[in-house]
Order: sequence, then structure tokens, then C-alpha cells
Amino acid sequence: MNVQTGGRRREVSVPDLVSRARAGQQAAVARLISLVEQASPALSEVMAAVAPLTGHAHVVGLTGSPGVGKSTTTNALVGELRQRGLRVAVLAVDPSSPFSGGALLGDRVRMADHAQDPDVFIRSMASRGHLGGLSWAAPQAIRVLDAAGFDVVLVETVGVGQSEVEIAGLADTTIVLLAPGMGDGIQAAKAGILEIGDLYAVNKADRDGADVVRREIRTMLSMAARPEGAWKRPVLKLVARSGDGMAALVDALDQHRAWLDSSGDLVRRRTARARREVEAVAMESLRSRWARVGEADMLEELSLAVAQGRLDSHTAAQRLLAE
Amino acid sequence: MNVQTGGRRREVSVPDLVSRARAGQQAAVARLISLVEQASPALSEVMAAVAPLTGHAHVVGLTGSPGVGKSTTTNALVGELRQRGLRVAVLAVDPSSPFSGGALLGDRVRMADHAQDPDVFIRSMASRGHLGGLSWAAPQAIRVLDAAGFDVVLVETVGVGQSEVEIAGLADTTIVLLAPGMGDGIQAAKAGILEIGDLYAVNKADRDGADVVRREIRTMLSMAARPEGAWKRPVLKLVARSGDGMAALVDALDQHRAWLDSSGDLVRRRTARARREVEAVAMESLRSRWARVGEADMLEELSLAVAQGRLDSHTAAQRLLAE
Repeated sequence: MNVQTGGRRREVSVPDLVSRARAGQQAAVARLISLVEQASPALSEVMAAVAPLTGHAHVVGLTGSPGVGKSTTTNALVGELRQRGLRVAVLAVDPSSPFSGGALLGDRVRMADHAQDPDVFIRSMASRGHLGGLSWAAPQAIRVLDAAGFDVVLVETVGVGQSEVEIAGLADTTIVLLAPGMGDGIQAAKAGILEIGDLYAVNKADRDGADVVRREIRTMLSMAARPEGAWKRPVLKLVARSGDGMAALVDALDQHRAWLDSSGDLVRRRTARARREVEAVAMESLRSRWARVGEADMLEELSLAVAQGRLDSHTAAQRLLAE
Repeated sequence: MNVQTGGRRREVSVPDLVSRARAGQQAAVARLISLVEQASPALSEVMAAVAPLTGHAHVVGLTGSPGVGKSTTTNALVGELRQRGLRVAVLAVDPSSPFSGGALLGDRVRMADHAQDPDVFIRSMASRGHLGGLSWAAPQAIRVLDAAGFDVVLVETVGVGQSEVEIAGLADTTIVLLAPGMGDGIQAAKAGILEIGDLYAVNKADRDGADVVRREIRTMLSMAARPEGAWKRPVLKLVARSGDGMAALVDALDQHRAWLDSSGDLVRRRTARARREVEAVAMESLRSRWARVGEADMLEELSLAVAQGRLDSHTAAQRLLAE
């Protein structure tokens, strides 16, 4: 299938687009991500084309409450990774925004240090209003970025409950970012972030209270029951604004990746991730089938009956599935 | 099917439990909601039993950013509704909490004024970790509360993006709560709350800036394109702590309910809601089928192939659905 691309709406084949993305053409990468976002009819072909090219990238999730300095940390992290010669893609997921493509978040502003770097690709993605939501689009976008040859795919999200759990499900390694003066102890316990981090980093470590936060998190982590031989989750200190501690953070990322490889956890995590992706794609495929004429009429009729109390939702669901 | 109930684990039939709930026994209502939360095998029977008893309650959603005073407003709103002789159920949905049943939120503390009132039922519900999440459990819990004879079911949620859109999908009438000094103008534009509210209320209206917020929201609402004859969305002022403005808010709720009835929008909204519920129940039913032995092996095999790049997620999904 050919897809349109560029300002002049030229047509290009999917294999062509994938080749260009692998050759480092940012516009081709962007176009592929847009095909994911739009749930393009060409998407099955895109995913089939990229599948054999995936598996190289280290997928790193970064999450934390608003105000802990996620954008600054992402910026500094990209800088450190670039110094080590790695190609980096950043996927900023904002579950509260109906906008995507980076229009509102202002990718270029947030990541001013790297806007001109051809080996850094930055993209915002909104989960709202999307077909299938974050759980459908994000894993496919990550596959595209992986296939495009990026060494690290950094997935950044605002920590608002469900999204941070989802991000942990997407990543090989999840960094939970904290900062002093934000009641993080309670925050951590409440949002369940103790369950999702592989690395913890206390940003703004030059401020009062950083050591307290670090100690609290360490205490809470030490109380959690963990199987023998489990990854020992470090709690690092950072000053992202000045770059302090970034080298140690990247070293810790490397160590975790090595641990994932040697423990067999990488395959387990990626299989679990693929499972959720397959489920989400299957669900969405069903949903779009139900939206087609004929099936849509049936669903509408069942829904009206449920709305009017003539039928219950479980019986209606069974009838829908029996079709 | 009989289900266990009470501290002594007595068995009771589903029809019995529903009768008791309708007779005003709070423990029976609570037990039914728990059956929803636990995705009990008895749930199909519960939903079939409650279906013909639904349709009476006015389902009201209340959302807003943290700090605008949702709990205080809920408390005051319940007070006003009780003064009018109405039975009220409150479902507090916290999408960031893995806890449910009100253990953490401390329902009794939050709603101290109404804890002893037999005509007020209060329940927290967490969406995380739940089978099917909020979109699966909440509509079914609302049906239970509707069937139990509550006149108003108040669904309160923290405004964090996806959840507020979901809440708008659940309710007949959605109240968006704002407050001065929170950058609500930007907040509103960002989170898309302009699309979801039927009523807007500026809480803490005795503070500086309340009129500014009200004017901003009014301006933004007036700029939105609306079809002719559409509901004119009011922007009210409240001081929930003192009760000021609560009567006007309840009057506005009544007006919106009357408008829903006369315009035919009530049936449309409820059918759309039932449609999402039927879809969610169908999806969850499939998902649990895939978790069964045999199908689970197939899904696992497909997922491993996707994780290793031997297969793409779209082809895997098609194979799964072909079974």
C-alpha cells in the first residue's frame, strides 16, 4: 500500500518509508508514527515490515509526579546518551492531553538542546481520543522507533496513576523520578510507584530534603518482599539542571539492561508486553468490526435494550460475541 | 447462585440480596458492589436481576483538578439533595489508587456529615488493578445503585485526563468544578474539560479571582461551536464549605435533567453509555477466555513470536480472533 507523505503529498510505499526511517530520515520516522496514531489502513503492512527489525532498542520509561522535573531530566538524559554516541528517540506521552504531534507540549521548546540533532527524534503522543488509547498506540510507536534503529527509546509520561502503570508495562527499564518537598513518600505509597520502578532517582538533589526522600524510598523499597536474585533497585541522586548524576543514571540503565539479559527477564517482559499489545490490537479490531454497518445496527439495538432495562449488559455482550 | 455475605459468611441468593438492597439495607448494596468489583461469577445473575429495576436514578458526574474542593462540594451537594428528601449514592472513583472499598480514602472521614444517614450510601472504587478497569466496573456499579432505588447517583473523580472523559461518559449530567488561583483557564483548555461539562461551578467563590475564572470559562464556552437548541451550559458560583450556591446547583441539575428528558438526549446518552458497557463486558469476557488453558498457550506462543520479531502484532491478533 502506498501512503502519502510530505508537504507535496507525494506517495511512497511502506517498504520505502521504512528504509528511509532506517537511513535516519526523521520525516520518514514521523510519518510512520502518524500512521500509528491515525490507525491507518496501511498500519498492518507497517507493523509486518518493522517486526523483523525490532529488538535492538533499550526501551526506558520515565515517570514521576508533575513538578519533579521530568522534562529537564529527559533533556539531560538525552545529552548523556548522545555523549556516548547513542541514537535516542523520545516519546512523550501525555494522558491528559487530547492533542498530539507535539503542537501543545512544544517539543522543540522542551528539548531545545537537541532540536537540531539528527540522531535525536522527539515526539509527543496523546492517548485521549485515540483509537484504542495509549495501550494500543504506544507499543506500536515504540516498535517503529526500535526498527528505525534508535539505540534508546525513552518513553516519558506524567505520573497520574494508570498511565504510570501502563508505561512500566511498555518499558524494559522504568525510572521513577522524585523530588524533595512534594510529599513523595505518601505519593509513592498511594500511586503504587513502588511496584513499577527499576531505578529511582531523586532529582533536585541540591535542595533540602533530598536525603530524606531518598531514605524514605529506600526504607519502603527494603520492606517490599522480593524473590531471591531479584534486581536490587538503586535510589540515585540527580541535579538534572546541571547534569550532576546523569552519568551514574545512564550507568545504572546499562546495568539493568545487562541484568535483564542475563536473568532472562528481558524475554519475559517483552513477551508480556507483546501479549498486551496483541490483546489491544485484537480488541480494537473487534471494536472496529462492530462499528461496521450491520454489526453496528445489532450493537445499537442491544445497547438501547440495555439502556431501557429490557436486557442486561452481560447477556447483550454474549449475544454480540455469538455473532 | 448463592453468594456469601456478612461477617458470619451466611449464604444468600442474588434475588434476596437485590430485594434487601431495594429495602434500604446498606450492607446488601455494599455486597452487590463488591460482587461487581470482584467480577464474581454471580455477576451475570446480578446484572440480569437489576436490569429491569434501572432507569430511575439521575446519574451525576463531578470532576475537577485536585484542590478545587471536590470532596467538600460532594458533601454539601449530598446535604442539599437530602434536604429535598432524595436518597443519594456517592461513588468516588480514584483512578490513581490501587485501593478500593474506601479503606484509604476514608469515606467516613470525607463525608462525616452523612455517615450515619441510612439514605446516603458512600463507596470508593479504584480503577487500577480491576478486571476491565473503570470502564467495566463503574457502569455496573451505577446500575446496582440505580436499581437499589437511589434518586441520585453521584460519581466523583479526580480530574486527571482520561478519567474525566470516562466519567462524562458515565453520567447523565456532568459537573466540572473549578476554583480560583489554579490556572484553570489553561487547565480547562488542556484537559479538554470544555467538551465534557454540562454544568460548570466555580468553587471558593469568596476568594479573589473567582469572577475572573468564571468569565474565562464563559468566554471559552461561548467560543465553542454548538448545534442549535443545545443545552446552554451555566457557570455557577459556589462556596461549598458554607453551602452558598448549593441550592442553585441542585436547581441547575434538575433543569438539565428536564432538558435531557424533553430533548431526547437522555435516551441517546444512556444508549451510548450502554454501548460502551456492553463493549467493555464483551471485551473482558474475551480476555478471560484467552486466559483459559489452551487459549492461554496460544496467546503466549503468539506473544513470544511478536516479542522476538518473528511475527507482527496485527497478524497475531488476527490469528487469535480466528480461533
